[in-house]
Amino acid sequence: MQDRPLALPHVFHRAEQLFGAKTIVARAADSTLTTRTYREWAQRVRRLAAALDALGVSPDARVGTYCWNSPAHLELYFAVPCSGRVLHTLNIRLPVDQLVGVVEHGGDEVVVVERGLFAQFWAVVDRLPAVRRVVVVDDGSPASLPVDDRIVDYDTLLASVEPVSGRFVVEDENRAAAMCHTSGTTGKPKGVLYSHRSTVLHSLGLMVADAAGVGERDVLLPVVPMFHANAWGYPFAAVFAGSTLVLTGPSPSPRDVADLMREQRVTIAAAVPTIWTGVLPELAAGDVPDLRLVFSGGSAVPISLSEAWRTTLGVPLTQGWGMTECSPMVTSGRLRTVHDGATEEEQALVRSRAGSPASLIELRLVDPDTGAELPWDGVARGELQVAGPWVAASYYGDGDPSRFTADGWLCTGDVAVIDDHGFVTLVDRTKDLVKSGGEWISSVELENLVMGIAGVAEAAVIAVPHPKWSERPLACVVRRPGADVSRDDVLAHLAERLPRWQVPDDVVFLDEVPKTSTGKFDKNDLRRRYAGHVMAP
Amino acid sequence: MQDRPLALPHVFHRAEQLFGAKTIVARAADSTLTTRTYREWAQRVRRLAAALDALGVSPDARVGTYCWNSPAHLELYFAVPCSGRVLHTLNIRLPVDQLVGVVEHGGDEVVVVERGLFAQFWAVVDRLPAVRRVVVVDDGSPASLPVDDRIVDYDTLLASVEPVSGRFVVEDENRAAAMCHTSGTTGKPKGVLYSHRSTVLHSLGLMVADAAGVGERDVLLPVVPMFHANAWGYPFAAVFAGSTLVLTGPSPSPRDVADLMREQRVTIAAAVPTIWTGVLPELAAGDVPDLRLVFSGGSAVPISLSEAWRTTLGVPLTQGWGMTECSPMVTSGRLRTVHDGATEEEQALVRSRAGSPASLIELRLVDPDTGAELPWDGVARGELQVAGPWVAASYYGDGDPSRFTADGWLCTGDVAVIDDHGFVTLVDRTKDLVKSGGEWISSVELENLVMGIAGVAEAAVIAVPHPKWSERPLACVVRRPGADVSRDDVLAHLAERLPRWQVPDDVVFLDEVPKTSTGKFDKNDLRRRYAGHVMAP
Repeated sequence: MQDRPLALPHVFHRAEQLFGAKTIVARAADSTLTTRTYREWAQRVRRLAAALDALGVSPDARVGTYCWNSPAHLELYFAVPCSGRVLHTLNIRLPVDQLVGVVEHGGDEVVVVERGLFAQFWAVVDRLPAVRRVVVVDDGSPASLPVDDRIVDYDTLLASVEPVSGRFVVEDENRAAAMCHTSGTTGKPKGVLYSHRSTVLHSLGLMVADAAGVGERDVLLPVVPMFHANAWGYPFAAVFAGSTLVLTGPSPSPRDVADLMREQRVTIAAAVPTIWTGVLPELAAGDVPDLRLVFSGGSAVPISLSEAWRTTLGVPLTQGWGMTECSPMVTSGRLRTVHDGATEEEQALVRSRAGSPASLIELRLVDPDTGAELPWDGVARGELQVAGPWVAASYYGDGDPSRFTADGWLCTGDVAVIDDHGFVTLVDRTKDLVKSGGEWISSVELENLVMGIAGVAEAAVIAVPHPKWSERPLACVVRRPGADVSRDDVLAHLAERLPRWQVPDDVVFLDEVPKTSTGKFDKNDLRRRYAGHVMAP
Repeated sequence: MQDRPLALPHVFHRAEQLFGAKTIVARAADSTLTTRTYREWAQRVRRLAAALDALGVSPDARVGTYCWNSPAHLELYFAVPCSGRVLHTLNIRLPVDQLVGVVEHGGDEVVVVERGLFAQFWAVVDRLPAVRRVVVVDDGSPASLPVDDRIVDYDTLLASVEPVSGRFVVEDENRAAAMCHTSGTTGKPKGVLYSHRSTVLHSLGLMVADAAGVGERDVLLPVVPMFHANAWGYPFAAVFAGSTLVLTGPSPSPRDVADLMREQRVTIAAAVPTIWTGVLPELAAGDVPDLRLVFSGGSAVPISLSEAWRTTLGVPLTQGWGMTECSPMVTSGRLRTVHDGATEEEQALVRSRAGSPASLIELRLVDPDTGAELPWDGVARGELQVAGPWVAASYYGDGDPSRFTADGWLCTGDVAVIDDHGFVTLVDRTKDLVKSGGEWISSVELENLVMGIAGVAEAAVIAVPHPKWSERPLACVVRRPGADVSRDDVLAHLAERLPRWQVPDDVVFLDEVPKTSTGKFDKNDLRRRYAGHVMAP
C-alpha cells in the first residue's frame, strides 16, 4: 500500500478542493456575524503560512495563540501545522504565573493575540524574552496598543505577502502538529504534544457515525474553547468533513450561544455543563429543529439538566468524556442497541455516564494495589487506563512520568467500573474519593444526588480529615437564586437514597463553587478552605 | 503520542469486548438461517488461529480461501491476519488456469474450501504442489469427498485445539493482512497486498458518516462476495462498528437476497447492479422500512434502475466506485448540500456517477499526452489517478509497473472529468473509449442511454475497427423477456439524444452480455467476437 502520511495538509487541501463554497460563521465582540467561505479561509491560511516565513519564524517553531474561537484562530489551526510548525494554544484563563510558565515551557517564538485579550497578555510579555513577536488580531475591540517593535498587526501581515502556492508537505506523520498544556492547578506545567497522525486519526474518530458522525451536512458549534484541548477536536473534524462551522467569538454569553444555535440551525454543539445550564432557559421548544447531538464534557452531566434539555428541546445532553492527554476523546455516552428496551430514566443514566470507547481507543481497569487487570463486570472498581494512537505516551519534557505505565498506557487518575458491553462509569478521581473507615465513597455520586434537589444549582463534595474514620465527606452547595434549601433538606434527601455511612457529615453553603481555568470544580481550593472544618453535630 | 499500530487485533478485541451480544446471521445452502453471537464468533476465531499453528502453517503464510459469504469466511477474515498470516481470497468464478496461476502466485500453503465448492477446487489441486492442506468447511452440501491425506475437516480441526488466549499482537501496522488478485481477463495475475494499516483505515473510512456511516445500529448485507476485494471492506467495517452482519451463503438468488433484506431488516446493502436489477421485483413498497443505503458498484448504475428503487422502495441506488487496487473504496455518489436545490432527475444523475472522494483519498486528472495536471472544472477530460493510504503502491511481485507513476500514484485506466466540488464523472475506461475520427466517444454514456429504453435489460457498447474513422461504436443489446425492441428503436432513441457522429453504426442483439469472473461486462470477449463485424447499412 502507498506510504501516504496521515497529516493535516491532506485535510486542508481536501477542504479547499471539495468544500470551497461551504462557510465559516463567526460572532464578533459586538455580536455581529461575519461569514467567510472555506475558499476564502484557505487563501488566508496560505497567506498566514507565507507570513510566518516572512517573519522569520523557525520552520519547526512553536507558535502560541491567545485567542477565542475566531476566524484567525481557525487560520492558525491549519497554517501553523501545515507549514511544519507547532500550534501552541494558550489558555486565556490561566493566572499570570502559570501563563508565563506555559509559554516558557513551550518555547514559543511568536504569540498571536486577539486585541480584546491584548492587555492581559502584554502584562507578562517582559517576562518572556523568547517571544520575539506579538501578532495582534483585530477582533473589533477598541483596546489601544502601545508602540513597540514586537507588535505586528495580523491583517497587515497577511496583506504583505503572497499566498503559498501548491501543496503543503508534511512527510513524517509523527511530526508534532499542536501542543496544549493541561489545566492542572498544582505542580509544573504539563504539555501534551499532538502529532499530525494523532490529529488526523482523532478527526476521523469524530467523523465516525457512532461517535459524533461529523459530516458535510452538519452545522457545528464548538462552544468549548479552541484554546483548550483543540476545542475537543471539532475544528479539525469540521474542516475534514466540510461542515459549516460556527465560531462563538469573544466571551459568548448563554444568550449568544442560544442565538447562534437558533439562527445558524446548528446540528451538533459541544460545551461544559455550566454552559448548557445557562443556555437552556434561552431556548424554547421548536427553536432548534435541526439539532441532533449536544455533547457535554469536562465534568459530570447532571441527569436533571440533560432531561430538561430532552423534554424542552427534544435533544438530551450526551456525555463525552476525555482528557487533554487523549486529544481529548476517549468515550461517549451515546446509546447502543443494548439500551433499546430501557426506560427513559435508564437511558438518561447511560447518557450521563462516560460511556463506551471511541474507535481506536483501548481501555483497561487496573487494581491500584496489585496492578492486576480487573474484569469488565460492572462491579470491579479500579483505575482506568487508556491506550490509543491519539493518547499521549509522555508529557512534553517528560514531566510526571508516573502517569504512564511501563507498557505505555496512560493512567487517567480516575476510578471506574466497566460493564460487559464496555460502558464505563467513572466513580471518582482517585484523589477525590473519600476514604472513610477503609471504604471508598464517591464524591461524584454524592454530587449527582445533591444536584438532583430542585433548589440546588451546584454541589461539590470533598473529603475532610477525620480523627476516627480517616476522612469524611462534606457537601459544599450553591443554592439557586431565591431557593430555600437547608442543611437538613440536603442530608434528608441523601439519607433516603444512600447507606448511612455514605451520607456527608455536614453541609456548607457557598455563593459559587471555585473553578479551575477550564471551568472544572477546583476541589483543591475547597480542600484547603475546609481542611480544618469542624463537622456540625 | 503513543505508537499504537493500526492493526486488526484491535478491531477483533474491540468487537469481542464491546459487541459480544451482537449477531452474525448466515444463510446456508438450503436457505435456512443460522445465528451466532460475536462472542461465539470470537471464540471460533481464537480456535482457528490455534488450529493454523497446529497444522504447521508458517507464521507469515498465505492462507487461501475458496468460499462464499459464510461464517467460516468471517472467521478466516480475522484469524488469518490476527495470527500474522495473509488472507488470500480466491475468486470462485476464475477459470481453472487462472485459479492455478493465482494460487501459485500467492504461494498459498493451505486453502480453505467450502464443501459445495470442493469438486471445483479439487480438480486443480494436483497442479498446486505447494498447497499442503485443503481444509473443507461443511456448508450443508451433500458433495462427497475423496480419501486423501491433504483433506482436513474445518470443524474437526477447530474442535481439536484450545482457543488462543490473551491478545493477538501485530506490532508492525505495515505487515500484510490480506491479498486479492484483480479480475483482469488478460495477462498474468496481478495481486494486491493489503496491510493491517490500510485495512483499519479503510474500515474507518466506511464508518465515517458521509461514506457509509457503518454503525452499531446497522444491519449490513454485503451481497458483494467476500472472495472479491474484501466484499468492498464491509465485513471488516461491520466487525469494527459492531453492526449486525448478514451473510448470503452459497449462490444466493435474487429472492434469497430480497428475503434477507426483508426478514433481517437490513439497513445497508451493497452489490453490483445486476443483483439490484434482479432483487427489485422481489420486494414491495413497505418491505424494507429500515433500509437507508443501497450501494451499487462494479459497473455503472443505470439511472432508470436507481429511480425504480427510489420510487418503489424509497431508497435509490447510490454508486460506490472503487478498484481492487484501492481496497476498494475511492468515491461515492452520495449527495452533498450543494445538490439540495437540484431536481429529482439531477439528483439521480449525481447518485449514478462516481461521486466525490472518501476521507483519506486524493485524486488528480492527468493529460495522457503531456502528463500535465488538469483543472477540476467539469470539462477537462483526463486520466484519473488516485493516492491514499489504502491504495496500492505496486502489484505483488511487481507486475505491470506502468500502472504506477514515478511519484507513487495509481493510474486507474479511467478517463474522467471532475467538477469544482470534487465530483467525478467517469467518461470511460481508457481502453473502452471509441476513438472515432480523432474524437472520443464514451461507451458508458451510450450504454446508459440504451439501458434507459424500457425493453432493454442490458447493453454494452464496443469499438469496432473502421477503415475511415479508425473505430466506430457497435451497440450489443439484451432485450427484456418478451420485450419487442428493434435496431431502429435503439438508433432512433439515441439519435434524439446525441450528436449524429456519436450514434452507433449498428446494433446486435444477444441473449446475454458476457461477464468477467466478478460480474463486469467482458468487453474483450465482445471485441473479439465482433472484430470483423460489418456494420449494417
